[in-house]
Amino acid sequence: MARRVALLQSCPIVGDIGGNAEMILQMTKIAKKQGASLAVSTELIISGYPPRDLLLQDDFVVACNDKSLSLDCEIPVLIGSPVPPLDERSLPGNGVIRAGESPREVTRKQLLPTYDVFDEARYFEADERPGIARTIGGLNLGVTICEDAWQHCGATPNDYDSDPISQIVEWGRQGVSLDATVNLSASPYHSDKVNIRLQVARSAAKSLGHPFLLANQVGGNDDLLFDGRSIVAWPNGQAILAPGWSEGVLIVDLDEINSCTWIGEGELQILDVNQESEVPDDDLLDAIVIGLADYCKKSGISSIVLGLSGGIDSALAACVAASAVGAENVTGISMPSRHSSQHSIDDARSTAHNLGINFEIIPIEELHKTAETSLDEILSVGHPVAAENLQARLRGMIVMAFANANGAMAIATGNKSELGQGYCTLYGDMAGGYAPLGDLYKMEVYALAKAFNNRFGKDVVNNSTLTKPPSAELAPDQKDEDSLPPYPILDDILRLHIEEGLDATGITNRGYDLVTVNEVLTRLASNEHKRWQMPPAPRVSKRAFGQGWRQPLAARHDWRNFLSE
Amino acid sequence: MARRVALLQSCPIVGDIGGNAEMILQMTKIAKKQGASLAVSTELIISGYPPRDLLLQDDFVVACNDKSLSLDCEIPVLIGSPVPPLDERSLPGNGVIRAGESPREVTRKQLLPTYDVFDEARYFEADERPGIARTIGGLNLGVTICEDAWQHCGATPNDYDSDPISQIVEWGRQGVSLDATVNLSASPYHSDKVNIRLQVARSAAKSLGHPFLLANQVGGNDDLLFDGRSIVAWPNGQAILAPGWSEGVLIVDLDEINSCTWIGEGELQILDVNQESEVPDDDLLDAIVIGLADYCKKSGISSIVLGLSGGIDSALAACVAASAVGAENVTGISMPSRHSSQHSIDDARSTAHNLGINFEIIPIEELHKTAETSLDEILSVGHPVAAENLQARLRGMIVMAFANANGAMAIATGNKSELGQGYCTLYGDMAGGYAPLGDLYKMEVYALAKAFNNRFGKDVVNNSTLTKPPSAELAPDQKDEDSLPPYPILDDILRLHIEEGLDATGITNRGYDLVTVNEVLTRLASNEHKRWQMPPAPRVSKRAFGQGWRQPLAARHDWRNFLSE
Repeated sequence: MARRVALLQSCPIVGDIGGNAEMILQMTKIAKKQGASLAVSTELIISGYPPRDLLLQDDFVVACNDKSLSLDCEIPVLIGSPVPPLDERSLPGNGVIRAGESPREVTRKQLLPTYDVFDEARYFEADERPGIARTIGGLNLGVTICEDAWQHCGATPNDYDSDPISQIVEWGRQGVSLDATVNLSASPYHSDKVNIRLQVARSAAKSLGHPFLLANQVGGNDDLLFDGRSIVAWPNGQAILAPGWSEGVLIVDLDEINSCTWIGEGELQILDVNQESEVPDDDLLDAIVIGLADYCKKSGISSIVLGLSGGIDSALAACVAASAVGAENVTGISMPSRHSSQHSIDDARSTAHNLGINFEIIPIEELHKTAETSLDEILSVGHPVAAENLQARLRGMIVMAFANANGAMAIATGNKSELGQGYCTLYGDMAGGYAPLGDLYKMEVYALAKAFNNRFGKDVVNNSTLTKPPSAELAPDQKDEDSLPPYPILDDILRLHIEEGLDATGITNRGYDLVTVNEVLTRLASNEHKRWQMPPAPRVSKRAFGQGWRQPLAARHDWRNFLSE
Repeated sequence: MARRVALLQSCPIVGDIGGNAEMILQMTKIAKKQGASLAVSTELIISGYPPRDLLLQDDFVVACNDKSLSLDCEIPVLIGSPVPPLDERSLPGNGVIRAGESPREVTRKQLLPTYDVFDEARYFEADERPGIARTIGGLNLGVTICEDAWQHCGATPNDYDSDPISQIVEWGRQGVSLDATVNLSASPYHSDKVNIRLQVARSAAKSLGHPFLLANQVGGNDDLLFDGRSIVAWPNGQAILAPGWSEGVLIVDLDEINSCTWIGEGELQILDVNQESEVPDDDLLDAIVIGLADYCKKSGISSIVLGLSGGIDSALAACVAASAVGAENVTGISMPSRHSSQHSIDDARSTAHNLGINFEIIPIEELHKTAETSLDEILSVGHPVAAENLQARLRGMIVMAFANANGAMAIATGNKSELGQGYCTLYGDMAGGYAPLGDLYKMEVYALAKAFNNRFGKDVVNNSTLTKPPSAELAPDQKDEDSLPPYPILDDILRLHIEEGLDATGITNRGYDLVTVNEVLTRLASNEHKRWQMPPAPRVSKRAFGQGWRQPLAARHDWRNFLSE
């Protein structure tokens, strides 16, 4: 008889225990129908990942645990679930429960990532050994949870004291016979992640000498994205990869790679020994759309409003919004001021028209004039940035008025380059419940706009928007390059510092001018107070502002001053 | 010869390695002059606490370590400093360096708190034993770092695997003779903290059989406050306590409690066996003022602007601001609308006049009318909250215009009760760089306003402000109680849930109506998206929004729905 295991690549909703349980039951039915004798879910599927401080509520943990243990599924399922502390003075575990016949706890996670976007030492007690699920659907399985498998090939930023994969290998040497090892994952996306994850799976399979099956969560949860792409790797280096960004059931035939099937949208990738996965060019586009779409779906938001300036950022944000909630549920508002050029209105209208979203024009000139009169004493002296910000804040107010009146969510249209430099207005263009482009450098914004045009098969974002010099249009003839280095340079300097951790010296060694580099890094450091108040942005880079970026605020002293004392 | 140790109760600036080193040198001079043979600093004094993601920069850690090792101090000092990882695949340590004669690393922190506001497992590798500093200034000392001493009496939320105090006790049994054990702390404030800290010190001294000396950081760093109150406890239960909220040097005579002295402002408290510390009634007032004052000082902000509505929150915020940066550096702006009553303007003027801050009146009627005209189509249909928020956002815009023009910082005036219920306007009254009252329940705001009046010896906050029913004045005859339970009830429900962790059942068991409780908890859960964008607020309660409160956003499903399926 074929040895068939189903991996449930799913999109749970954090906190929705009942809904997540129902989803598991539905997917398990599909799995059974396809001949699987057991199913493997993702990490913490019953609570959704990451449950964050819900885990501090004892009764939440108990409810998850009870629901998992009592799940009436047609074939056995390994369910990722918070499990209660082992004693009164301990934390809960990040566990795996065997549901269906002879329900019981199988194991708890050993390696608790506490870096970057991860906080698991805050919530969980670490276990000391991996689990084994014996005679489950006729198989014997090693059971690990996400990070547990990452130490083995050195893919963690720092070493843990133990290596659960090696522990299972050692058990094998001692005579424990396993058909496969499974891994319940909630492994977040970033643009370079899939091949690292593939390496983790292949390394484990090779050492274990049997197939390694990794079921990964899919979908967006606030700032975290999960791309799915569940993996099965065989000891010889062959592997299969489920599609990214869609839910489905991966039916794994342990003995015959060509008999594996994917029940869901998209195609299974079969990878030869050492073959890497080719991520589609427009993968980032899917990531950004899913982030916003899931944020809306999970928060009960059905419509979106944004300011359409005629610039590239708001044009792309409109494309993302239309893809996320449907063009008919998106409203773009053009809010020209005396500093807006005619092309700004024309380009905004063009984007709206091409996308088929609702379009409104609300000029701000009257409001702007009245505000200048009311604030004459304030604005006539002092820093000119006050007058510039006034326009951005009037626009923020209008967008928010539309949002509040209609129960829509405003989105902020800023990108990572701007946010990193503070080249944006708090409560102005930074206003909104979500910032879909908040982790995209400016040049990525351009690339993604072109990718959208490709996908739509027409120039939704017109040539004028794509080619004119970026401008905030808050003062006469203003250009971004008056205040910032050209974006290709700015992006690269930011990326070298944020993603690669280089300091000013390291960056100048890559060929950039020291004065420019210092200016960029100083603006980055001194604008953290703005980022503290930015809306959540989907994380697509190795390091995003927000959960994965914890700078001190009242500490804007450049500590390197010390070095040059 | 007297055995004299100096504890440096200091206020380092995060990232300012050179400045912090200079501060240590100055304090050490005082210590020497007072006859101390060595000095003990606070945790991570050289980097400031908490350095957060600065610790991810390798060269920052190296710079701290090098600076500490090379410090040319007149008597030996134990310096809290980040120390480099022990190997390439490890994290740095939270260490203690002996500076002065024979400089070297003494120990690294064993217990790394990773709960509430603490993130230390993110940054540090845990050590396995406490340190000993031998023949330092003629003494032999056990050396521990903050949390290291908290396991011993069970004052941590969960148990660690080891107890550094017991380890030192065991060394004593094995013949290691110590004069005292010291503890370098950065132990944050909350309103019930000091007597817990005292209990930690007494418990350690009793078990150790020698004096236990705890040097604590003082001052504000963003949302974290440190109250100082360094402690020395003797094995018999006697203790001394340095003053709260001020820097200074505590000269400890290990053999004679009455010879201990405090060089700085305020008075040393000498506590008899089992005597608790009495925290002054207006302690919370000092906490809030220090939080704002240090945020400004450390960020280079010298002036503050806020909206003065005539209500209690902005009146108290004005008192705090005037105390923090000086009345002459504070501007209060009254921004009456058609819904503002005359007493609102009068009361705002009264507060400003009594405090001696600058006062401006900028009516918003013209702007409001223009905005209504511009937004007629939007406001004439849809939810009335849009029109209400418009007024709050116009005011936020005006305050921010003043701030931007004058290089001042706007402060948000909201309190914890409002923020917890979402009874506030994003980008309106929530605008500002800091929210001094953000962790105070509404009834605490009243109490603190009275405490200010007591301190000033006159009714700075007038009787009308203190006694009129709270109103947002965004609609005709609007009262907070139209939308919220009376504040004494609301505050208590929020406190029982947030501080004590009770669920709806637990709260109704305390005598509250289930419908009210459910409404309050639902509003709390469903407004997390606003709190994600709130400015930092000084943490004075056991659990504050912000760093110590990590709710999921797109997860506003009340998971308890599951229980009532």
